[in-house]
Amino acid sequence: MGVKITGVGSYIPTIQIENSDFLERDFYDKSGNQIEDPNEDTVRKLQGITGIEQRRYAEEGINTSDMAYEASKKAIEDANIDPEELDYIILAHNFGDVPKGTNQSDMCPSLSSRVKSGLKIKKPSCVAYDMVFGCPGWLESFIQASAFIKAGLAKKCLVIGAEALSRVVDEHDRDSMIFSDGAGATIIEKTDDPESGIISHNSASFTYSEAYYLGFRESYNPEMRMKKNARYIKMEGRKIYNFALSNVPKAMKACLDESGVDIKDVKKIFMHQANAKMDHAICKRFYKLFDMEEPENVMPMSINMLGNSSVATLPTLVDLVQNNQLEKQKIAKGDIVMFASVGAGMNINSMVYRF
Amino acid sequence: MGVKITGVGSYIPTIQIENSDFLERDFYDKSGNQIEDPNEDTVRKLQGITGIEQRRYAEEGINTSDMAYEASKKAIEDANIDPEELDYIILAHNFGDVPKGTNQSDMCPSLSSRVKSGLKIKKPSCVAYDMVFGCPGWLESFIQASAFIKAGLAKKCLVIGAEALSRVVDEHDRDSMIFSDGAGATIIEKTDDPESGIISHNSASFTYSEAYYLGFRESYNPEMRMKKNARYIKMEGRKIYNFALSNVPKAMKACLDESGVDIKDVKKIFMHQANAKMDHAICKRFYKLFDMEEPENVMPMSINMLGNSSVATLPTLVDLVQNNQLEKQKIAKGDIVMFASVGAGMNINSMVYRF
Repeated sequence: MGVKITGVGSYIPTIQIENSDFLERDFYDKSGNQIEDPNEDTVRKLQGITGIEQRRYAEEGINTSDMAYEASKKAIEDANIDPEELDYIILAHNFGDVPKGTNQSDMCPSLSSRVKSGLKIKKPSCVAYDMVFGCPGWLESFIQASAFIKAGLAKKCLVIGAEALSRVVDEHDRDSMIFSDGAGATIIEKTDDPESGIISHNSASFTYSEAYYLGFRESYNPEMRMKKNARYIKMEGRKIYNFALSNVPKAMKACLDESGVDIKDVKKIFMHQANAKMDHAICKRFYKLFDMEEPENVMPMSINMLGNSSVATLPTLVDLVQNNQLEKQKIAKGDIVMFASVGAGMNINSMVYRF
Repeated sequence: MGVKITGVGSYIPTIQIENSDFLERDFYDKSGNQIEDPNEDTVRKLQGITGIEQRRYAEEGINTSDMAYEASKKAIEDANIDPEELDYIILAHNFGDVPKGTNQSDMCPSLSSRVKSGLKIKKPSCVAYDMVFGCPGWLESFIQASAFIKAGLAKKCLVIGAEALSRVVDEHDRDSMIFSDGAGATIIEKTDDPESGIISHNSASFTYSEAYYLGFRESYNPEMRMKKNARYIKMEGRKIYNFALSNVPKAMKACLDESGVDIKDVKKIFMHQANAKMDHAICKRFYKLFDMEEPENVMPMSINMLGNSSVATLPTLVDLVQNNQLEKQKIAKGDIVMFASVGAGMNINSMVYRF
């Protein structure tokens, strides 16, 4: 008995934010000093490192749970199932619904309950819950759905990653240019096909020294600190980069070793779209562990157009590739791929999967 | 192979709030009209319905994750395990950490990561995540831990329910008198003892018409609505009461039927401490389904002293009973009990369990 993805859908918000839209911003550093470099340089440097040219923001009136609902409708249609067949709805996010112009998270009721309500599912035994696991939340929810299927609690699950980071960024922090909004959804089903589905997976939470590398803290603008008792998503970029480089390739190798799959049979690596430079550095180091070079086009990338939408990047990437939306990126039935993600917690997970 | 509780601990906040502490409040109804009855009457009526004489609030500087950490330390000690043996830390909450005097939820990093960090656990493969499922979150996390154990992903899990509702109540709403703060933690382990552990469980999310019976909305005080763009926990008390009465006894009966246990062998019913009148009405109706009267002292109750601390009530109740803190409430090895909970989502779950 195996567990596989039978449907996928995503919601890409309509508001397109260009790098040039940040040229008028007042940026400060962590110590509260105004950045003296011209914004043209700051923006060019950020694009060089992260690969981000554009990102998407949800429109006013659209919240995380709304994006999750839109992506879910598409995944259900793609899987060609009746939503009443679902046994679980698992929604990964990290900030709840934060309506534009407010700074309060709302997750009462849970966002998954809102999605189930929107889908007009009547069956009470379809259990809807939210989970918080940093950016690796969608992949971890996939692993949880798989455990429920294996434990006999479920046959079909809707697994969603949705986030509106534009609602929690500090506009005076250069890192705000990285973050974006979006949602991706997948239908995960029990399968008797021995040729497809999850082959191996692993997960880890590094908290001993790393718990606060990503956190929720005050604005970098000292005036904002005085005026507003508000906090924003904040990251220790350099520490995260080094942490990810040290730990993600090792986790991926352990997962691949456990799967018994030969590295040469891995067709694609779906990496959380955190930062193009970091993603390629992780991938390069992963292949180096097998004395190989990173193969050309092995990583489908969306960050240049969509930015880092946290839990949404991986399922959105699967949707884009399956629908031939990315150049030179195709997957066919039988292809073996790896998923990998790293984010707040600090959490890391990876999976070897056959389509 | 079974799954059982091997340790339990709770954190009961130190600030004791009496009903008389609400006598100076300005209460409004849902339509924004000031309540004309004297507060003495309002408070007496609330006590009559809910059974609440006192409730506990967390001190300034203590957040939900801090209470979760304190309860966890006790549960680990009670189970007599090395925290490095834990494979999962699952923390159920609904509002994140809301520092006193602010109205922002903070769950980046996740509260479970904060607890793991506090416990100084080094092992990365101990996976820490938060889950949101309304008041039934702790029981649902217990069910998830059981699924991970059955799927071969875990042997020992720390399962926590923690909440600081005092940080999200509208002080102009009479329902604010119901809510309180607290945390309860349990160690859940794989067992080969066929005589103890989970016998059966079920879970349900009612969202078709019920999703917003509990929600996050504006103050009942019209002036607060103008001045502050803030939202608070709000409930449709009458609708919830009727919903719970219609659905919880049925869910409990289905769970007991599935377990094969005779109702006469159920020693205790651990019910989420929502409201004493509602809890007894549910219990009475449950027994009526078997043509029986509610046995005397079958439900251990803590709501009179501790109020409704959401996800924390059930594990705290187990801790109180196991430590002989409640009069005429004892459990011995071999005793069969039922757990049941209802809350935001609207979610319901129940479990038949042998100690």
